[in-house]
Amino acid sequence: MGEAMSDEGERVNSLMSLLKRRGIIFPAFSIHGGVAGLFDYGPVGGRLLRKVQNQWREHWLSKGNIVEIDSPTITPHSVLEASGHVGAFNDHASECGSCNAIFRSDHLVEDYHSNPDSLEGPELDSIITSKEVSCPTCSGMEWLPSRPMNLMFSTIIGATGGGRQAYMRPETAQGMFLTYPMIQRHFRNRLPFGAIQVGKGYRNEISPRQGMIRQREFNMAELEYFIDPEQPPVHNLSKWDDTKFLLIPDPAGKTSESIQVTIADALEANIVRHPTVALFMAETYDFLIGIGADSSKIRFRQHESDEMAHYATDCWDLEMLGSYGWIECVGIAHRGCYDLGAHEDATKSNELRAWREFPEPVEVDKMVVAPIGSVVGPTFREHAGLVSDALLNMKNLPSNFPFELDLNDGSNVTIEEHMVEIKQVQETIRGEWFLPHVVEPAFGLDRIIWHILDHGYEMTEKQGEEYLILHLAESVAPYEVVVLPLFEKDGMNELAEQIRSKILTLRGINAYYDGSKSIGRRYARADEIGVPWAVTIDHTTTEDGTVTVRRRDDQTQIRISQEDLITHLNENSLHSLF
Amino acid sequence: MGEAMSDEGERVNSLMSLLKRRGIIFPAFSIHGGVAGLFDYGPVGGRLLRKVQNQWREHWLSKGNIVEIDSPTITPHSVLEASGHVGAFNDHASECGSCNAIFRSDHLVEDYHSNPDSLEGPELDSIITSKEVSCPTCSGMEWLPSRPMNLMFSTIIGATGGGRQAYMRPETAQGMFLTYPMIQRHFRNRLPFGAIQVGKGYRNEISPRQGMIRQREFNMAELEYFIDPEQPPVHNLSKWDDTKFLLIPDPAGKTSESIQVTIADALEANIVRHPTVALFMAETYDFLIGIGADSSKIRFRQHESDEMAHYATDCWDLEMLGSYGWIECVGIAHRGCYDLGAHEDATKSNELRAWREFPEPVEVDKMVVAPIGSVVGPTFREHAGLVSDALLNMKNLPSNFPFELDLNDGSNVTIEEHMVEIKQVQETIRGEWFLPHVVEPAFGLDRIIWHILDHGYEMTEKQGEEYLILHLAESVAPYEVVVLPLFEKDGMNELAEQIRSKILTLRGINAYYDGSKSIGRRYARADEIGVPWAVTIDHTTTEDGTVTVRRRDDQTQIRISQEDLITHLNENSLHSLF
Repeated sequence: MGEAMSDEGERVNSLMSLLKRRGIIFPAFSIHGGVAGLFDYGPVGGRLLRKVQNQWREHWLSKGNIVEIDSPTITPHSVLEASGHVGAFNDHASECGSCNAIFRSDHLVEDYHSNPDSLEGPELDSIITSKEVSCPTCSGMEWLPSRPMNLMFSTIIGATGGGRQAYMRPETAQGMFLTYPMIQRHFRNRLPFGAIQVGKGYRNEISPRQGMIRQREFNMAELEYFIDPEQPPVHNLSKWDDTKFLLIPDPAGKTSESIQVTIADALEANIVRHPTVALFMAETYDFLIGIGADSSKIRFRQHESDEMAHYATDCWDLEMLGSYGWIECVGIAHRGCYDLGAHEDATKSNELRAWREFPEPVEVDKMVVAPIGSVVGPTFREHAGLVSDALLNMKNLPSNFPFELDLNDGSNVTIEEHMVEIKQVQETIRGEWFLPHVVEPAFGLDRIIWHILDHGYEMTEKQGEEYLILHLAESVAPYEVVVLPLFEKDGMNELAEQIRSKILTLRGINAYYDGSKSIGRRYARADEIGVPWAVTIDHTTTEDGTVTVRRRDDQTQIRISQEDLITHLNENSLHSLF
Repeated sequence: MGEAMSDEGERVNSLMSLLKRRGIIFPAFSIHGGVAGLFDYGPVGGRLLRKVQNQWREHWLSKGNIVEIDSPTITPHSVLEASGHVGAFNDHASECGSCNAIFRSDHLVEDYHSNPDSLEGPELDSIITSKEVSCPTCSGMEWLPSRPMNLMFSTIIGATGGGRQAYMRPETAQGMFLTYPMIQRHFRNRLPFGAIQVGKGYRNEISPRQGMIRQREFNMAELEYFIDPEQPPVHNLSKWDDTKFLLIPDPAGKTSESIQVTIADALEANIVRHPTVALFMAETYDFLIGIGADSSKIRFRQHESDEMAHYATDCWDLEMLGSYGWIECVGIAHRGCYDLGAHEDATKSNELRAWREFPEPVEVDKMVVAPIGSVVGPTFREHAGLVSDALLNMKNLPSNFPFELDLNDGSNVTIEEHMVEIKQVQETIRGEWFLPHVVEPAFGLDRIIWHILDHGYEMTEKQGEEYLILHLAESVAPYEVVVLPLFEKDGMNELAEQIRSKILTLRGINAYYDGSKSIGRRYARADEIGVPWAVTIDHTTTEDGTVTVRRRDDQTQIRISQEDLITHLNENSLHSLF
């Protein structure tokens, strides 16, 4: 195990070094000394990120009842107070009484507890004391009591002094809840519908570790899918009848061991507790396979009842296996009506509901204060209409006469007993307004990107020397093609530039030209940034127009005409030629 | 003029109301009371924003020597101190001595000065006093002296107490300067090359006005294009030989009146002072026309010498005409080597330069401290090599003997006069490291989106009622197609859903189904969100499979087969059928 860990450590270091050397991902602000937990996507990685984001968008938008929104990252206090983040988005921190260094309390006790993240302050303090944990900075043991530290980046909107407290959003999801009125109107109130957002989220980690896994600023992608709890959707899961998913159900449930099962069977057995959660688990799996994740390194872990937020009815984490072990990369949660309800409570807004028509209108009996026209008319003259409306809309019957009645124009009048008649009428109720439920798949894109890099990273040897290949899926590779003149002379370079220009006209295909150093070095460079196809222009090309195409994954080569190259690239079918 | 302004005011209000009603763009956090200067892109607008961003990316990335990066929005103090933003990213604010309300000083004096933005504190105070400006809140006139207020959103990285001062980035450009070492390595040091970034920028306005024009959080898109100042690029501008641009040159220059001129002529006449600035002006114009801007509402205004940053050699604002008058939407600036130089000064990094090979190597004479081998060898034994290297690499000749010499391994030795010989040698210098210059086009995407909405907004009448059309270019329309069953019965709805599904399989084409209310209402709704094509399924469709296609811009209709519809949609050639 020690040996294996050290191999994994070497692998992480080797991959990190490649990512930096090749301009994929690297620590941000490094010429200024760096900031832990902040990363750049560089000249190669920028496109990788963009392609993953676009694949994710298309995956959900193609369902037809999902739209994309974009909302601010700066979020006022009242919103995050309503959502619960001001109160509960915390880690516990312990301060050393000698040197005043601050650490995450759960990090201090991780040698003494298997799941320290779940502990509360007093439990953490008690382990720190009983195990005599010393300060990593000064070795002192005079700890102040741990305290919850909010993890939101705080800022002030507007001029200092008169400004308004705000935070950088901890998640993109709030944007979808706050724009729900527009989304609902867009879909003409026809549930189910969803909205996605792709963008930055922020978490002011006390001490970030594990490279790209725990960032202070990260790329998120979330879907909020709104449903009517009384009309549970029926989904066709037959597409996944041949796919067995690795599930680790809630240990408190009836099936507590990890199982390999189809998603339909898991739903049937009530291990997955909601059909839409089941659908989104399968869809999420498909998305990850589509961008090149290794299917044998994906599993779903169900939240334990005491780990799940009180309002949630079913939560699954999709975990990916990589150099840091199994890491949560996606959370799929049935959140009930918690979020819309919380904003409704905080704002008294009447725009956060959906309308449900009853199968048949319902007739109900109702007591009303009916105006007697022959009295009200002459008494109130031009105001008679307003008075009648106000009487019929009274929420409660008057307890005695006379009483003061507020009219719609701001004035009020005195109503005496002989002006009205209290009687029973029938009212037709056609439906009701209710809070929709929501199922939310929340993706941490940087973690996912880390894992597809990790899954695709091969350290091998060539002629006795280390040789590195990044097996990225074509759907997300930063460059689809590299065009290489065998030598930069005899017209090969011009020809290569021409072919590259032709390739660049193909929709969505990116190609670069590389003429420096030996052909072997250039192949190696392309393999390191995950380019699936290398097209080489040699002397034969200048004679008969054919080129060689080299496939990254097995380094085999074929010779084809330029026309074939363009046609097959355009149809994404180069593999069929090998 | 008063009349015109009021018409424009009505037009703005009508457009804003449509944008909100149709889920395009609306004030953010409105159910929580709203925050000035923050906006949401809704279920329709989200896709508009995304398409504009993607058009922008493709426009620059297709040049072939430009890459995309993505860097954090949270930026440590040292970076923004080096860039000059900590010192100079300010507006002047005046505080009312009676009620403590805070206002932008230039807003207070805008009735008394034509360009109040250019004034310094004492000038602002003097106008406020002499013109007896009263407080908009309490009408008091006891102003405190104006003071510069930094416009960056401030935050703290890490645990409170031990945290590190940071800001939300005021621009995306710094990301490209800080990752320059990776970009330069990616391009193997072959200038010119560029890097783009699309993302959020932040500006903590004291009092935002003008809707989407002055936001506190906005969508930016910037290109930093690095060039060798001694090898000014030659660009082919002939593509724009038939395009006259409206330029307003620097009034201090020789041509101070506004002119209509080709970009090549403007460069030839040295009105535009750098070929890459000229190229990017034309490219920027092309981008805007491509996403539907009105060419008659675009002009370029050159910065006056005293308005231009001291390091800049040429700056042009692209201004768009809309309901708020002429508004700066893009800045195209030759920034010299200011930015890389500033970071080099602050960090002493040696990674921010480019290498320029001399046409011929240069031989120079140089005085060196040469070790005398027969003395150094026996004296320093195994360290003799290190000592020789250190002697030959001395930057300055020693002023006296003996002296202490630092070795590469951290130790040091004493050098006496008899150990060395000071002599002249020849050195071959093949080139030099220099700071590249940069030309930067910086785009405010929200302002651009506002103007294409404004340019495309038509208020007309139909049967005596107001009728609204949003003439959005197909390249950015949120939906390309709406599919409408004439009635939701007799199989027309199923057929419409089928056709919609078929359209959704076409790459990059988005379609929605609309079945509610009358066909006229549904056409109107589609016109209001700028859908270029409406496909209607009627009784004839159920008989012979043909559909009607309605063109938004002139509301003409044709009848074609479903196959023709799909083929022409896919080839983006529906217009050719009309």
